[in-house]
This record gives sequence, structure tokens and C-alpha cells, in this order.
Amino acid sequence: MAYVVAVVGATGAVGNEMLRVLESRDFPVGDIRPLASARSAGREVHFHGRTVPVRELRADSFQGVDLALFSAGAERSRNFAPEAVRAGALVVDNSSAFRMQPDVPLVVPEVNPEAANAHRGLIANPNCSTIQMVVALRPVREAFGLRRIVVATYQSVSGTGAGAMRELERGTRAHLDGTTETPEVYPHPIAFNCLPHIDVFDAEGNTREEIKMRDETRKIFGDPAIAVVATCVRVPVFRAHSEAVVAETDRPVDLSALRQALERAPGVVLVDAPGRYPLAREAAGRDEVFVGRLRLQSDDPRTLAMWVVADNLRKGAATNAVQIAELVYGIAPRREEVRV
Amino acid sequence: MAYVVAVVGATGAVGNEMLRVLESRDFPVGDIRPLASARSAGREVHFHGRTVPVRELRADSFQGVDLALFSAGAERSRNFAPEAVRAGALVVDNSSAFRMQPDVPLVVPEVNPEAANAHRGLIANPNCSTIQMVVALRPVREAFGLRRIVVATYQSVSGTGAGAMRELERGTRAHLDGTTETPEVYPHPIAFNCLPHIDVFDAEGNTREEIKMRDETRKIFGDPAIAVVATCVRVPVFRAHSEAVVAETDRPVDLSALRQALERAPGVVLVDAPGRYPLAREAAGRDEVFVGRLRLQSDDPRTLAMWVVADNLRKGAATNAVQIAELVYGIAPRREEVRV
Repeated sequence: MAYVVAVVGATGAVGNEMLRVLESRDFPVGDIRPLASARSAGREVHFHGRTVPVRELRADSFQGVDLALFSAGAERSRNFAPEAVRAGALVVDNSSAFRMQPDVPLVVPEVNPEAANAHRGLIANPNCSTIQMVVALRPVREAFGLRRIVVATYQSVSGTGAGAMRELERGTRAHLDGTTETPEVYPHPIAFNCLPHIDVFDAEGNTREEIKMRDETRKIFGDPAIAVVATCVRVPVFRAHSEAVVAETDRPVDLSALRQALERAPGVVLVDAPGRYPLAREAAGRDEVFVGRLRLQSDDPRTLAMWVVADNLRKGAATNAVQIAELVYGIAPRREEVRV
Repeated sequence: MAYVVAVVGATGAVGNEMLRVLESRDFPVGDIRPLASARSAGREVHFHGRTVPVRELRADSFQGVDLALFSAGAERSRNFAPEAVRAGALVVDNSSAFRMQPDVPLVVPEVNPEAANAHRGLIANPNCSTIQMVVALRPVREAFGLRRIVVATYQSVSGTGAGAMRELERGTRAHLDGTTETPEVYPHPIAFNCLPHIDVFDAEGNTREEIKMRDETRKIFGDPAIAVVATCVRVPVFRAHSEAVVAETDRPVDLSALRQALERAPGVVLVDAPGRYPLAREAAGRDEVFVGRLRLQSDDPRTLAMWVVADNLRKGAATNAVQIAELVYGIAPRREEVRV
């Protein structure tokens, strides 16, 4: 069995990563169809050593497509994902367009694989910041319950896209050279700075990224009572998001039992020894979620601190999307060796 | 009245800033005595347009000194601060050497000025990360009580010193040029990375910086019951620390009353409007603590989120130290205009 796979937004940062993940996991691709807006159509992408032309995304692009991986923004997902479903494709959508619709599963395969069963042709891929956090927290929740999460993020610019990566490089060089940069992608300079502003603000002063972390976490865990207080911050890092996560549990945490659970947990790599902890630059290009800095306050065994790092383009987007397809199709992926 | 002022560690990043703060606040300096280790003795510093030679720090350096500002590391403070006190000087010590001694006041003038009264010749300056947090939280605590703080920091490399600033610049250029850097100051590359490791680790997996934030906050507020869960992270920023602070209060927070209190609060600048928030690069070189991103979760009026930014070399170190001296001597500083 091999699948006809469309990648919508194939020329973007996540779309490119989807092609790389399909390759590295040996996903059984019979035919690949890179799609993009008219502006990018005619460009070429590489797949398993071949050069493949990018076609224009249109309503009739999905005839004969088995799997459509969307990562071209919420508006294009709203316009074209229903067409793909109508044409019979399984859609895995990386945008925020459908995530909170009650009839659309929001799936992280290591956390709530059973939710995928209810799909009606479309499954939503969660936000990058949410994915890595829930992968790390699932073993915590299973063993000790989960009441509240306070999280501060250190998010890389690749989450914004390739233009933001160029802006970080340009702004960094300008600052080091003592010249002035004019930011275009971000509202303020990102070089040597921290911007507590990801996505738009709501009336209560939260950003939409912060609200996504709350609402998506509740939906994935199937528990609307979990409190999530998030502060989402863009930092001058090219790739991989870091998160300072503080979890309040129902029951006292046994740290050594938790360490064992995290070592067994799918998709998790525990990096937790004195002086050893996960780092963005080491997680870049990797598919796993790296967890470390596990700590309890001596007077409070129900408050667990941890440091969670993952590549936002891989596990935070492309890898999770391909894993969802593997889950639905019952494909056992070729797992790469864990190299830690 | 003019004071003979010794600056111990005058050639370091904080020592230099102490000279700048004494100048900018028009502190009544009769004579300035820059002191440093034998290695740096003979160098020169600038003060009010004059060039002043740096002398070697010795036990007999403090004859005739009224005020000794120490910022040369804990060991030098332990060795020489008692000599300065014996010689009759008021010592304001920026190191961690004496902060937690019960008979040494730990003072942030906007927060606990009364604590300075009990000094026996020596007053400790708190850790940079602690100072900006307690300045921002004092109005919260006064109005609504303070039960617990969960804080994640985004700390600039200038807190480590001038060598770390050079390492960030060197590592950044190397990474952009595609070459390899070998870090010397930090255990891992700081360029385009986030290191959850500031100061040394204890047996429970906390760093000493995280413990300082807990213990110093309790001492400054005079409340050992306040819980503080800190994650301290070094980020690729040259100057000014940012902090994602989540405060749990005793009573429900009235956000508009809190905004008014913060606008009146000494040393605080409120920067809190949609799309307007404090930024490290804008706080650099400033003496105030910048507060924004004030938010409550709609279902929890006792959990307040805020974003707190200050220059770690100024308010986090030099400015606070000079303010302590002004407080003890009853000097009203010349305040610079607030430019926001």
C-alpha cells in the first residue's frame, strides 16, 4: 500500500519539514503532490532525491489524493480543506482553523491517539507550544493527576516562518555592526531581545498563543477543568521552543517514579542530570520532546517544575502531522535511533 | 556634605555602572576611590570627566572612606567588607556573601526601606532577578496579599560579566558564519540558545539563582511563608532581564486598582496597552522597573500574570546599591525624567 500525499504549503518552513519527515520516517508515499499559492507555483521541491514541481493550490487539486497535509495558514485551510475531504482525502491540518471545533479531533499520538478514531476526514494538529508540553505532561497526569499548569515559553522565530528567520539574522548582524535595523515581520527588534507577544491580543490582554495553549491542552487531555496560565515569548533562537513548565498535581509527585515513567514514555527523551538539561540548539532537527530540570519544592510535593524543549517545526508541526497519518493508517514508522 | 566613596571591583561591569549611577544621580562624592584586584590595579576609570587610577584592593584601602560599594564577588566581599566596616565605612555589598545573614539588612529602597535602619555597617544588595520582581510585586502584595510566585526568567549575559558579553558576540558571529564556537564562560553555546542554568546546582536540582529568588524574596517581604517557584534561564540578550511572573494573591485582584497602584509606585513604569509591553532593549540603561502584560485568568481572580523588565546592571545592581546609600544618608537624588 502506498499513498498519494499532497503537501499544501510545500514551499513554507513547515511544508518543507513535512517532506523531510515523510522521507526520514519512510512513509509509504506512492506519489507526492506539493501544492502552494499561485505565487509559489512553478518552484521545485526535493523529495527522495527527485525534483518535483510545485503546483498551484486549487479546489480541484485533491482528486486521487489519499492524504493531504495542510500548513498554509488558517484561511487556506478554511477554503481548501473541505474540498480535500470531499475528494476523499484524509486531511491533517496544521493551522488553527479547525482545532477547537467539537467534531474535529485534535491529536497528539503519544497523548490522545484514541481521539483520532472519531474523525470525519479531518484531524487538526495542535499548536507547536501545546504539543511539546502535553507530551511531557502526559506521564505526570497519568501518575499524579493534573490540576494546573503555569508555563512560560521561549519560542524560536522559525515558528513565524522563513521571513522571521531572515529578520533575526539581519537584525543580529545590524546590531553587532552598530547599525539600525527596521523590523518588518515582528513589531519590535527580535535580535538580543525578548518579545512577550505571539499572535494577536484579546480583550483581556492575553495573546491568542496563550489562549491556544490553554484551550488545546484542555481538549487534548479531555479535561476542561485544567487551569493553564501561559506567557508566550519570542526569543532570539532560530529553531526549537523551550518551556518552563510548572505543574500542580492532584497527588504528591514521586520524582523517581516520574523519571522512570518519562524514560518509558513514547516520544520523550529525559535529559536530567546535574549540568545536563535540554537545549534548543541540540533539539533542532530532532523528532522527540526533551525533558529535564525536574524539581519539586521541598515544602510542596504537588508542584513540579520541568524544562521542556522540542523542535517546533518537527514535533511541533510536521512530525506530529505525519504521526497522525501513521496512526490512522496503522503504519509502524521506521524509528530513528535516539542519539542522546 | 560630600562622601569619600570606594568602589570595589571598579573595572567590572557592575563597578563601572556604579560610577555611572553616582554621576547620573549627582551623588555627593567628595573623593572617589576605584579599587580592584592587583591584576586590574593601574588601569584607569572615568568619573565626572576626570581620569582616576584604579588602586589595588587591600585591607588598609578603607581609611577615611565613608561609603564602600562592593561588587567584586562573594569571596572578596567576605575578605574585605569587614575591614571596610571596621574602618568606619558604610558598606553596600552587591555579592551574595552576606545577604541571608540575619543581622544584615537586605534592602530594596522601594520595598523595605525600614530594614536599612538596623544595619551594623553593612547592607546587602539583593540579586538582580529578585530586585526587579519585588519592586513590581510590592503594590500587588500591599493591595491583595501574596501567597505564591511562579517566575520564569529571561536573563541577559551582562549579569555574568563582560566576558560573557564578548562570548555572546563571538558565538553569534561564529554561528552566523557557519563556524564552530567553543564556549568558555558558559557550559554551552549561548548564541541563539536558552540555558536553564544560572549559578550552581543544589542536591534537589535547583540552581542557586533559583534559591536566591526564593530566599531573598521572603527576607525582603519579611514573610517566610511566600512560596517561590523559579526557573532561571540565560538568554541571548546583552542587557536587561525579563521575567514572566505569575502571582497568587490572598484576595481577588482588581486590575484597574492595581494599574493605578503601579502608576503611583516608586521606581515602576507601567507599559501596558495592547501591543505595548516592556522590552529588554528599551529597558537597557534605565533605572526603573518596567511592568506590563497584566492579566487575570477569567476564572481565577487570584492569579495575576505580569511581565517585568529591568536593566540588571542598573536597578538590578548599581542603582539599587546607590539608592541604599541615599536612603541611609537621607539624600534626595536628582531624579532623571521618565521617558516612556
